[in-house]
Amino acid sequence: MIKLENIIEFIKDQIIRIEGPYQGMEIEGIADLKNIDSKYLDWIHPNSQQPQVRAETSNSKVIIANQDVFYNDSMKYDGKILIQVKDPYLTIAKIGNEFFAKKEKPIIHPTAIIDKDAKIGKDVNIGAYSIIGSCIIGDNSIIQENVIIRDCVTIGKNVFIKSGAMIGNPGFGFVKEGNGTLVKFPQIGNVIINDNVEIGSNTSIDRGALSDTIIGSGTKIFNLCHIAHNVIIGEQTIITAHADISGSVKIGNNVWIGPNSTLIGHQIIGDNSIIGAGSVVLRDVPSNEVWVGNPARFLRENKV
Amino acid sequence: MIKLENIIEFIKDQIIRIEGPYQGMEIEGIADLKNIDSKYLDWIHPNSQQPQVRAETSNSKVIIANQDVFYNDSMKYDGKILIQVKDPYLTIAKIGNEFFAKKEKPIIHPTAIIDKDAKIGKDVNIGAYSIIGSCIIGDNSIIQENVIIRDCVTIGKNVFIKSGAMIGNPGFGFVKEGNGTLVKFPQIGNVIINDNVEIGSNTSIDRGALSDTIIGSGTKIFNLCHIAHNVIIGEQTIITAHADISGSVKIGNNVWIGPNSTLIGHQIIGDNSIIGAGSVVLRDVPSNEVWVGNPARFLRENKV
Amino acid sequence: MIKLENIIEFIKDQIIRIEGPYQGMEIEGIADLKNIDSKYLDWIHPNSQQPQVRAETSNSKVIIANQDVFYNDSMKYDGKILIQVKDPYLTIAKIGNEFFAKKEKPIIHPTAIIDKDAKIGKDVNIGAYSIIGSCIIGDNSIIQENVIIRDCVTIGKNVFIKSGAMIGNPGFGFVKEGNGTLVKFPQIGNVIINDNVEIGSNTSIDRGALSDTIIGSGTKIFNLCHIAHNVIIGEQTIITAHADISGSVKIGNNVWIGPNSTLIGHQIIGDNSIIGAGSVVLRDVPSNEVWVGNPARFLRENKV
Repeated sequence: MIKLENIIEFIKDQIIRIEGPYQGMEIEGIADLKNIDSKYLDWIHPNSQQPQVRAETSNSKVIIANQDVFYNDSMKYDGKILIQVKDPYLTIAKIGNEFFAKKEKPIIHPTAIIDKDAKIGKDVNIGAYSIIGSCIIGDNSIIQENVIIRDCVTIGKNVFIKSGAMIGNPGFGFVKEGNGTLVKFPQIGNVIINDNVEIGSNTSIDRGALSDTIIGSGTKIFNLCHIAHNVIIGEQTIITAHADISGSVKIGNNVWIGPNSTLIGHQIIGDNSIIGAGSVVLRDVPSNEVWVGNPARFLRENKV
Repeated sequence: MIKLENIIEFIKDQIIRIEGPYQGMEIEGIADLKNIDSKYLDWIHPNSQQPQVRAETSNSKVIIANQDVFYNDSMKYDGKILIQVKDPYLTIAKIGNEFFAKKEKPIIHPTAIIDKDAKIGKDVNIGAYSIIGSCIIGDNSIIQENVIIRDCVTIGKNVFIKSGAMIGNPGFGFVKEGNGTLVKFPQIGNVIINDNVEIGSNTSIDRGALSDTIIGSGTKIFNLCHIAHNVIIGEQTIITAHADISGSVKIGNNVWIGPNSTLIGHQIIGDNSIIGAGSVVLRDVPSNEVWVGNPARFLRENKV
Repeated sequence: MIKLENIIEFIKDQIIRIEGPYQGMEIEGIADLKNIDSKYLDWIHPNSQQPQVRAETSNSKVIIANQDVFYNDSMKYDGKILIQVKDPYLTIAKIGNEFFAKKEKPIIHPTAIIDKDAKIGKDVNIGAYSIIGSCIIGDNSIIQENVIIRDCVTIGKNVFIKSGAMIGNPGFGFVKEGNGTLVKFPQIGNVIINDNVEIGSNTSIDRGALSDTIIGSGTKIFNLCHIAHNVIIGEQTIITAHADISGSVKIGNNVWIGPNSTLIGHQIIGDNSIIGAGSVVLRDVPSNEVWVGNPARFLRENKV
């Protein structure tokens, strides 16, 4: 149980107004609508259809909402507390992370195999059965279990790499000889993963061929993605599950790559663009545009 | 070698008629057409083009077929045995599983790392290098090698989880702050996997955000699939390889999701529906319909 | 540092002409354009737009190019060396592999779990936490870490299997009983992987149901692919990342299967054909054709 006053203190910069008798309240957690009861925090999504009705009928005593919800007699009569904030979705995320998400103390599991020349920062977690080459890993990064990170990899701070991810394997480039034999093109570049990146389960990020594969800071890559050699991804970009990013693709900042989409080699995706789910991108996509389909075509501008 | 009489005893409920001298026969196995010889069981698929010719020309002495094949002089002359059943495909599957598929005795491999608070049922197999949190696993379930099952997971009976599967990792939800920073939305829900489910190699099933991710009983999920947070899948449904099921999707009972198809978040797929290979589903799909394409559209009704 | 004379000796069969004072030169490596300096080998891709300008303005002293580049006064004045070869892309690949790619000595890692009946050839590498059944592995093959190879698998010589690959798991075939229950069809066939095959990270190759899954020699399969039961792939074929090859598909020799493409069951892809990125193949594809789209359609002939 967490004192509501402590939660209010934590989010005070975001609060517009508090109504109702919040002193002395204790909160058990956050939950979905179905499981919420009076001891849980409830919150109204900004896109909710009937925010006022949602707030009045909530099983919870404490409602976090934006200014679309007002504290009326019904809420007052029920002894509810209304915490008005600018962005309830963001506020509940911050509350959940701070008070209700389990935080594990970082450990280096004894079964992890770590190269003696690896440079591991402070408070780094390395999970069971992970294999760490003579790479660099920044402070506060979490490497889960069964992850492989090879010699050629540099990882920043606060990076989160989920189980089964494979970072720094040699890429896939072949030159055909006259007799049809496929000769491997050397794959001797690096992987650079900047601060605050997240990498999903069973995702592979291959090393560069002659240059480097680079993931910009704050970018989030989801499960089962493939990031090929020489790919360069900007900052605060979202790569959703099963995305297939072929060799030498460049993706800008603040881009959203939809689930199971395919980017063929050497394409450039501009800043603030959106690639729809299942799209197959065969051409460069300018900044601030939404492209969808197979083959992907311009759908509309993306105003930001 | 298995006595044919024992096989016949095992499938007796399915037999319509037996013709030919089956007493004393012994069977070495089941095989594909190319490798079959007189000691192997042959079977005629109900959709076979020329079932009678297939039966007469089979290298095998023992043929399992439906009533499209009759025991004629040619078969009699060759000393063949014809076992007529209603569904030869089902019957051969049952025979194969019972007599010719290797059954491993369940073991808990000494390299598996199992939380002291895990509740493991009877006759459960946990393969080498698997990592099991303080979860619940029902009787007779098989967890292969290199699997990760986290604290938040409940697994039923007779569940089969193949190597490299990742069950219960935190999902992928972010809220954008004013400065563009992506803040993780808390991922603190559970995963519930009911009885008789199968989960493929390197498939990931993420925990719910605030509610649960649920897989209904008898449902089969194939290799390299991604099942996101809060997804709810019904019973006896087939999710083929590389399917990408985004957050909060609901899939009914007896559904077939084609290979490499993509379901964007919050869609609902009704009972008995079929989603074609490579489809990109952007809208709800009613029950008893077949949808295909990118974007997926109605193709025809699916009568069941 | 490698003596240029040794490199020249190694590629002498491919050299058309050498111009400039190469005696005594030493080479530090190969690199991409951005990182190249005078101690690095540079090379001009046959498709380069302005090969002569590229050669003249290179930061490197030593240029490998085809006959589109000639040794003019500018290059002479700069003391450059021009090595003319027929295929500079192939030549630089061979040089890189021979002189500048790190070669690891094969080891059997002590944490690898290897069945006592496994037949392992000479100079085979088996990485940490890999699990090897009573299979056959040919000479000089490299099995990386966290790989699983089951009893039913035969692997040729010089095969390269990357981390997290799952070879020989039971496939995905179910027969529906009257009550809707899905009964597993027996999966008791083998996997045969011929010489010089490469298999990517987290790729799964399932065993045959009653027959075998076969990968032809020299074929390269990339990361996160799914190769289902009974699939037969020819020689020198390229299967790019996230390709989904359903059961009983046959793929010829010298085929290119694009990233994230989907082949439904039982299709036949002829020799020398190309399947475009993100294609969904619902029909047989003849030899020497390019097919693209969802559903995939004939685009053009592929002359080889």
